[in-house]
Amino acid sequence: MLISGTPTRTIWRSDAGGGDAVEIIDQTRLPHEFAVRRLTTPADAAEAIAVMRVRGAPLIGATAAYGLALAAVLDASDAALRSAADLLIVTRPTAVNLRWAVQRMLACLLPLPPAARAVAAWAEAAAICEEDVVQNQAIGQHGLTLLRALAAKKSGPLNILTHCNAGWLAAVDWGTALAPIYAAVEAGLDVHVWVDETRPRNQGASLTAWELQQAGIAHHVIADNAGGHLMQQGEVDVCIVGTDRVAANGDVANKIGTYLKALAAFDNKVPFYVAAPGPSIDFSLASGGKIPIEQRDPAEVACIHGRAAEGQVVSVRLTPVGSPSANPAFDVTPARLITGLITERGVCAAGREALAALFPERIGENPV
Amino acid sequence: MLISGTPTRTIWRSDAGGGDAVEIIDQTRLPHEFAVRRLTTPADAAEAIAVMRVRGAPLIGATAAYGLALAAVLDASDAALRSAADLLIVTRPTAVNLRWAVQRMLACLLPLPPAARAVAAWAEAAAICEEDVVQNQAIGQHGLTLLRALAAKKSGPLNILTHCNAGWLAAVDWGTALAPIYAAVEAGLDVHVWVDETRPRNQGASLTAWELQQAGIAHHVIADNAGGHLMQQGEVDVCIVGTDRVAANGDVANKIGTYLKALAAFDNKVPFYVAAPGPSIDFSLASGGKIPIEQRDPAEVACIHGRAAEGQVVSVRLTPVGSPSANPAFDVTPARLITGLITERGVCAAGREALAALFPERIGENPV
Repeated sequence: MLISGTPTRTIWRSDAGGGDAVEIIDQTRLPHEFAVRRLTTPADAAEAIAVMRVRGAPLIGATAAYGLALAAVLDASDAALRSAADLLIVTRPTAVNLRWAVQRMLACLLPLPPAARAVAAWAEAAAICEEDVVQNQAIGQHGLTLLRALAAKKSGPLNILTHCNAGWLAAVDWGTALAPIYAAVEAGLDVHVWVDETRPRNQGASLTAWELQQAGIAHHVIADNAGGHLMQQGEVDVCIVGTDRVAANGDVANKIGTYLKALAAFDNKVPFYVAAPGPSIDFSLASGGKIPIEQRDPAEVACIHGRAAEGQVVSVRLTPVGSPSANPAFDVTPARLITGLITERGVCAAGREALAALFPERIGENPV
Repeated sequence: MLISGTPTRTIWRSDAGGGDAVEIIDQTRLPHEFAVRRLTTPADAAEAIAVMRVRGAPLIGATAAYGLALAAVLDASDAALRSAADLLIVTRPTAVNLRWAVQRMLACLLPLPPAARAVAAWAEAAAICEEDVVQNQAIGQHGLTLLRALAAKKSGPLNILTHCNAGWLAAVDWGTALAPIYAAVEAGLDVHVWVDETRPRNQGASLTAWELQQAGIAHHVIADNAGGHLMQQGEVDVCIVGTDRVAANGDVANKIGTYLKALAAFDNKVPFYVAAPGPSIDFSLASGGKIPIEQRDPAEVACIHGRAAEGQVVSVRLTPVGSPSANPAFDVTPARLITGLITERGVCAAGREALAALFPERIGENPV
């Protein structure tokens, strides 16, 4: 996507220093500062994922893939690659893309002689990124068809609610949930986006709002509490969210709070779509109850950072000192609340048969 | 309630300066600082309500009553009292207690000769406060019966989720939703409270957490997004919230986001109770759709204040500069999602007949 007119992705192999480095947008600095960070070791990649310099299911998969490329440059032995894989996989448990990308890299690299691995690793990581871009473009087009149909039924802007950030910052480019919105704007549809701020990490307020502002797309940031009321008032025409993992039955793990919005959408007959690229679908899990839910640092609830009047970014404490907090990072939305899944192969019902029909080659897949 | 061992209310007539002033806890300074603020004019009272130095439906009613006492001291003419009443009523639209208290004060004062009004106004405002305390104690006892029954069905602590602050800081003392919790702790029940932080004003994180901490009651602050997941996991035994206005059919206006928690409670068969003192019930409104929903300053979503590392309280911006926000402050939870209303006269179903049976003298009440 364009940043101040320059086409930019969230992650790329660095040209400097012989190309043995990766650069990322450090998303912990947004929206107040645009900063690029250089990664040169698998530990750098693991740290970037763990502290959420990169986040979003597709992007953490891509970052893990590049982390293995960095590992292969430093030491291409089986032991070193397996050690890097272990380091990367434990950073975050919920998004299946992380394990998927790591396993794909190992499956590509381990059969090769060590001397050939670095070159192959760069190529495979790049392929994962290119496939992500193509998948998201396809999701954008399939989603556009849905949005066109909804827009045709009403006058005025189409009001779309989204939770968290499933935009291009969550992927390599385009994004998942926001890809249909970008496609709709390109197609000339009049859209307006309700952006859930998405406590506690505020990916909506800091990332989705920034993306939409960069793209000149009408939006309002709202407290996560507001979406139900807006749906009751007829102010939301459709919800689109991303996902960290879809189970084989169509249950969807996504950022904490997604379930509440799905309940409200169902109660108000607002269509609720999940943008789900193939690598986010885990055919080895029968249902969402088995998806591991990350418990993050309670300090993310107790404290928040933002830009003070003087311009510097500071962290402030919100809760009384000594008052404990809890921080589950994801929830599972049951398939029964989901209108449809928007995949790169088309839109399908959130259910076992529909998913299996779109991805027949993946039925019976083993756990990654 | 006790603050550092001293019995304290949220509002009281000041002893200093001839007793012609009112003092309040300035709740905008909590939890980082405990500060008392002196009000000497109805404009002071209106300002305190408008900027939420006092908040919570019962307490803004009490503050408005004292605002009219301050008016009567300065100028007890009909015109001056009516002008003060108008000033106070427009500060906040959703809680019916504000209008109720103002109308009750006018009904008490206007028939009296002006010279008798100041004394009568102090007495009537004090009576409103005393009644609030008694009502809340009764709500506490009725709620305790419910909590005892729920606690008897399980081992371990009873997990209670609450939204916003409906504790003693929202009333004159005891609170509405928290009154049963205080009563339960006094009765020796093992309770643990999930405290929704309650964006955008964070009354949960800053006020409810502070109250519970002062009282030594086990709790965790959570993002508003987390409650649905906790209910899915069986981590919530009951929800209790307050209300700004109950319609005659049992629909409940309360802090934005209440509706989402009620949906999740319903979906997970978790009992969902609303603590509703009589003055919060508006028998003139047939249903909740007619309750005016306050739209507050979008800056409350864009910015937040908290305590920086150096100890000073600062405001920080969360959203990109130029990215707009929207801030509806309340929502309406349909009666169908509510297990029961806890009033000072007992617990009843959220419905027209049950409410009318408890408050028969108020059927057919005119709009206040």
